[in-house]
Amino acid sequence: MPEPYQLYYWPILQGRGEFVRLVLEEAGAPYVDVARMPEAEGGGFKPLLAFVQGEQPGHPPYAPPVLVDGELVLAQSAAICAYLGERHGLAPDDPGRRKQALQLQLTVGDVADEAHDAHHPISAMLYYEDQKEAALQAAAKFREERLPNFLGYFERVIERSGGPWLMGGALTYPDLALFQLFEGLRYAFPNALADVCSSTPSVLALRDRVAARPRIADYLASPRRLPFNEHGVFRHYPELDSDT
Amino acid sequence: MPEPYQLYYWPILQGRGEFVRLVLEEAGAPYVDVARMPEAEGGGFKPLLAFVQGEQPGHPPYAPPVLVDGELVLAQSAAICAYLGERHGLAPDDPGRRKQALQLQLTVGDVADEAHDAHHPISAMLYYEDQKEAALQAAAKFREERLPNFLGYFERVIERSGGPWLMGGALTYPDLALFQLFEGLRYAFPNALADVCSSTPSVLALRDRVAARPRIADYLASPRRLPFNEHGVFRHYPELDSDT
Repeated sequence: MPEPYQLYYWPILQGRGEFVRLVLEEAGAPYVDVARMPEAEGGGFKPLLAFVQGEQPGHPPYAPPVLVDGELVLAQSAAICAYLGERHGLAPDDPGRRKQALQLQLTVGDVADEAHDAHHPISAMLYYEDQKEAALQAAAKFREERLPNFLGYFERVIERSGGPWLMGGALTYPDLALFQLFEGLRYAFPNALADVCSSTPSVLALRDRVAARPRIADYLASPRRLPFNEHGVFRHYPELDSDT
Repeated sequence: MPEPYQLYYWPILQGRGEFVRLVLEEAGAPYVDVARMPEAEGGGFKPLLAFVQGEQPGHPPYAPPVLVDGELVLAQSAAICAYLGERHGLAPDDPGRRKQALQLQLTVGDVADEAHDAHHPISAMLYYEDQKEAALQAAAKFREERLPNFLGYFERVIERSGGPWLMGGALTYPDLALFQLFEGLRYAFPNALADVCSSTPSVLALRDRVAARPRIADYLASPRRLPFNEHGVFRHYPELDSDT
């Protein structure tokens, strides 16, 4: 039996760690979500903060999520998802196509970053309330220009690949990321998303296909899946969504 | 003889394409910087825009840079750098360490994104002049909190690896990215960078080592290296730098 992976991520939010959790769940890979364990069992914030403050051994991460696999310490959600996806049959075999899967994961990550920056345009170091005026402008640009562009792009990728997945006939890890992005956007911008996704049927179908995967369905129904909330990347501030 | 790589990127700026150009140059890999060729030879904006508008065959990119290698079409600068680095001996061989190199490249990219967003906090779709008030606030937070954190992080990575490079004794593609980041920050925020980099001697030494690599030195002295300017990721608006 291999040792379970250790995931270090904020225990109270989905955030960028959720992209990793979804790959671990779909792979059926044993893992410990360390910061969600009781402190008495070595969990809680403390071991996570030790990574952020450079007090853990191994290759230093700048920020969580951090995956530990034996001696390997790895950060950056896209790098972790690529690592896991390639090990667990959730990535193509060809080196060039592997990098195309990574490209898609990174583009999903770019949209997630922009969705985050829509509520924190000035700085992640300031409260939302202290940058609300700028956020109203940023969110309008995001909803009206970026959101349709990005979802239209993923629609084109699925069409071009022959579908039903981003890379063609087999699910790869960026499909899980696109599912998570869709769910996050629907939580944060329900009105704006409803407007856009009627013209991206392949993205919508992919979302439903991911949700119906047995391991993912099991995960989503379990207490392991944290609810969306106003601590994560995707936040529902009604004033940042469109009116209808 | 393999066909030269084709790089598609904005012909008037370094931007995110520069991370790719540096890997191609250090690898000594033949490449054509397509949009910088004369229109009569198939260059100019037109073939680049065709990619962005989804009119080129192959896996669709969302945005430049785009690398074409025979049948392979690949976008996202970090994915392209990883692809080239792994093919040309500028990446570790071990799968886990390969992903750590990618992690570092992505963290450099995060800093570059934040440096960009310091002058465009509300939206990349608006002019700087139309978001200047927000930019003054965003740039102050970037200079005072993010810049020292990030450079301190890379200093720790070099120390922990044993140096002189990020991954230890051999240059890998994220070293080229860190060089570019340093040069860009020095262009955009000369005063703020001077304050910080006196306490990151290993980062400074790494920058000098990259600049002294024969192929990089040759590239930097050639007309292939575009100057920094106010179209790229790193822009020098004196009002966004610190005073001293």
